[in-house]
Amino acid sequence: MDYQILETKERVLADNERAAAQTREALQKSGALLVNLMGSPGAGKTTTLLQLIERLGKDFRIGVMEADVDSDVDSKTIAATGTRVIQLHTAGLCHMDADMTARGLEAMDTRGLDLIFLENIGNLVCPAEFEIGADLRLMLLSAPEGDDKPLKYPLMFQISDVLLLTKMDTAEVFGFDAEKAAARAKALNGSLRVIPVSAVTGEGYDEAAALLKEKLALRRTGA
Amino acid sequence: MDYQILETKERVLADNERAAAQTREALQKSGALLVNLMGSPGAGKTTTLLQLIERLGKDFRIGVMEADVDSDVDSKTIAATGTRVIQLHTAGLCHMDADMTARGLEAMDTRGLDLIFLENIGNLVCPAEFEIGADLRLMLLSAPEGDDKPLKYPLMFQISDVLLLTKMDTAEVFGFDAEKAAARAKALNGSLRVIPVSAVTGEGYDEAAALLKEKLALRRTGA
Repeated sequence: MDYQILETKERVLADNERAAAQTREALQKSGALLVNLMGSPGAGKTTTLLQLIERLGKDFRIGVMEADVDSDVDSKTIAATGTRVIQLHTAGLCHMDADMTARGLEAMDTRGLDLIFLENIGNLVCPAEFEIGADLRLMLLSAPEGDDKPLKYPLMFQISDVLLLTKMDTAEVFGFDAEKAAARAKALNGSLRVIPVSAVTGEGYDEAAALLKEKLALRRTGA
Repeated sequence: MDYQILETKERVLADNERAAAQTREALQKSGALLVNLMGSPGAGKTTTLLQLIERLGKDFRIGVMEADVDSDVDSKTIAATGTRVIQLHTAGLCHMDADMTARGLEAMDTRGLDLIFLENIGNLVCPAEFEIGADLRLMLLSAPEGDDKPLKYPLMFQISDVLLLTKMDTAEVFGFDAEKAAARAKALNGSLRVIPVSAVTGEGYDEAAALLKEKLALRRTGA
């Protein structure tokens, strides 16, 4: 090795497990499923929401919490579909934590909802470290970002339940190898479900929607 | 407006101005220029370094600090060019701060160097908040991320000196409007220099390299 490695370890993580556990318990009682949607800026989080709302919106009552550092660009997009939306501003923070999530759920009023999405801040680092009390952690990796990302941001891949490989219609342009990306992600997390998708061709989103339907059915039967 | 906005303001920023000022002073004395290179995961930071090293490596002595949460993928790539490289591990942290940067500079041994790049963690939020003592803040926004990103991550655009719009060869595929992106960024930061680039066509990297040469010449004359 012809370069030096310097560890600059430091602890900044707050313990927010208790608040996350409370949220999880409250959601169990209400019957709603909370999905933590994570990925880099521009990975396709809002587009993925639109694809899933299109497929699930008729059968399920959906709510969306849009977390942003600033702006309400995404809330406007989601609200245009007639879906219940609340905008959360983190005012500079790079992630949502369990307390902020609990406040968001309270402010949104989750009564009657089946499925709630939190669109987290666009970021592959911080959101992975803060449990929010979600039932499902859904992460996106887009083809333009490159298939080496599991090597560089391992925690996000480790803590996720489902990985959507987005913008697959552009994979060839970017030399993105979906099998390589999936193998690298699964080396970190053997139980990760990987689904390649494209909002341009529609590829994969039926499978992703079906997966959420299964989870909702399980929740309903108390599993 | 048909959705509610909830502010979840919180302060987590450490004051690292003093350490940054010390670094800036030390670099002034040594004559080296420190560039803080920032952008999303997959925005093209390492590729941009390779392009700039190719254009500046003959005339200037370059050092690179590769900050990563984990892994040393990028250090291997840069080391292959014969450039002096040090790998910094933030062990989960989403940004470099001034202290970590100072330790990196010390460990790398900056004597004799003209130009030092810190490749920051791939992230549009946290690195914008932590001054490291750099002479130039160079940020990347890639065409696949979308031209709405200045609206959603304003601070990064506000604190940067130069914005490279990368992967411009794919702008059409993604409906990326460079003029719109530049206008949105300049609305936040009137003195921002915007250069569209592509590592595939080579577009723009000569201009970016020339800009760094100018800065180095100014540093040499004590301006």
